[in-house]
Amino acid sequence: MKIKTVVFNIDDTLYDASLQMSNARLNAVRAMIEAGLPVDLENGYRVLNQVVEENGKYYNHHFDELLKKLGLKWNPRVIAAGVVAYRETNLAFLRPFPDTIPTLLKLRESGYELGVVSGGLAVKEAQKLIQLGIHHFFEHVVISEEFGSKSITSNMFKVCLEKFSAKPSEVVFVGNEIQDIFSANEESVVSVRLRKGESRIREPKTNKEKPKYEITKLSEVIDIIKKM
Amino acid sequence: MKIKTVVFNIDDTLYDASLQMSNARLNAVRAMIEAGLPVDLENGYRVLNQVVEENGKYYNHHFDELLKKLGLKWNPRVIAAGVVAYRETNLAFLRPFPDTIPTLLKLRESGYELGVVSGGLAVKEAQKLIQLGIHHFFEHVVISEEFGSKSITSNMFKVCLEKFSAKPSEVVFVGNEIQDIFSANEESVVSVRLRKGESRIREPKTNKEKPKYEITKLSEVIDIIKKM
Repeated sequence: MKIKTVVFNIDDTLYDASLQMSNARLNAVRAMIEAGLPVDLENGYRVLNQVVEENGKYYNHHFDELLKKLGLKWNPRVIAAGVVAYRETNLAFLRPFPDTIPTLLKLRESGYELGVVSGGLAVKEAQKLIQLGIHHFFEHVVISEEFGSKSITSNMFKVCLEKFSAKPSEVVFVGNEIQDIFSANEESVVSVRLRKGESRIREPKTNKEKPKYEITKLSEVIDIIKKM
Repeated sequence: MKIKTVVFNIDDTLYDASLQMSNARLNAVRAMIEAGLPVDLENGYRVLNQVVEENGKYYNHHFDELLKKLGLKWNPRVIAAGVVAYRETNLAFLRPFPDTIPTLLKLRESGYELGVVSGGLAVKEAQKLIQLGIHHFFEHVVISEEFGSKSITSNMFKVCLEKFSAKPSEVVFVGNEIQDIFSANEESVVSVRLRKGESRIREPKTNKEKPKYEITKLSEVIDIIKKM
């Protein structure tokens, strides 16, 4: 069957979200230490990771909570230093992989329709695509929030197939998370796992978690599609 | 009595917050229109101002609400376009007045202690000072949130005097809002009104709202202090 549509996950597939996250958190703790937080970087980073783990990514008071967990008094100047450093670093690392735009461009030139299937909050993910400078490449963007979920579900692929009026075997999904590959496989979409980010070291445990293809650079998806 | 301390309001006193706000909102609506919002700029801007008026400045879903008020379906891509343009414009206009840093520097060189007395959320106002690049000038920062208020209260000047171990007649307050001048007068702090921003056209109605001095440029405060 000829492929007509390629859909992508966002984090660690179209840009280095793992690198962004670790640097944003490290720089936030560094800035808070410079503003007077009495903790060493390693310890502060470790506790901040705990705070995010416990309160979720979209909680708005991670740094307030960090101070509390360290047994320290609320200090708006220290918290503000963390927020500013976090935001600035986050923005600085919101850049596509070097081969992201060339790959998307090549696929569009070759006549493929492109889309996004990704976990997260709909507005926040759309913001990322705008700030990455790639939102105009995608015809349809399907985000898990609109399905009442934090991460990709197989139902999202069903909706994606409808939006593109495509059969499962005509659609390639590129993602980095094993769980997302599983969901694509569930709907018989052609799954391609990109080994990037923190998740790159995880191995599938069942056959349903195994991707049809595996790549280590996004641009390799072009050759895979050509050979199909 | 010799002046020893000068304290400043932030918005429209240390930077052009009125210009920042109107441009951020206009650019947000422009971006949303480009992303498909079926409304003209004037109308969109008017309704957005209404939304902020009704829900407060710190509400997190102004653009969602704008779509609702216009009778339109929720559209994360349009909302994201607004959020990105709003944030980028906000950041671009978060710059001190041309004479802000020279004035603060001159006052510090001349031996005055500096502080901030301002309305708002403590972390957000501290962020502004960091991003304006002026946080190191101020010894004490007193923000209304910590007093359970959205704007400056006279009690904040009481606390400010304690922090600086100063008598009212030794402290100058520079602000643009009539209400803030009133609060400074209540505590017999030397009030200086800077005619900047949207509030510049408002006139005091009672004697208690009248500032001791009035200026149209921040740097003029130096001459006033010298003459005292």
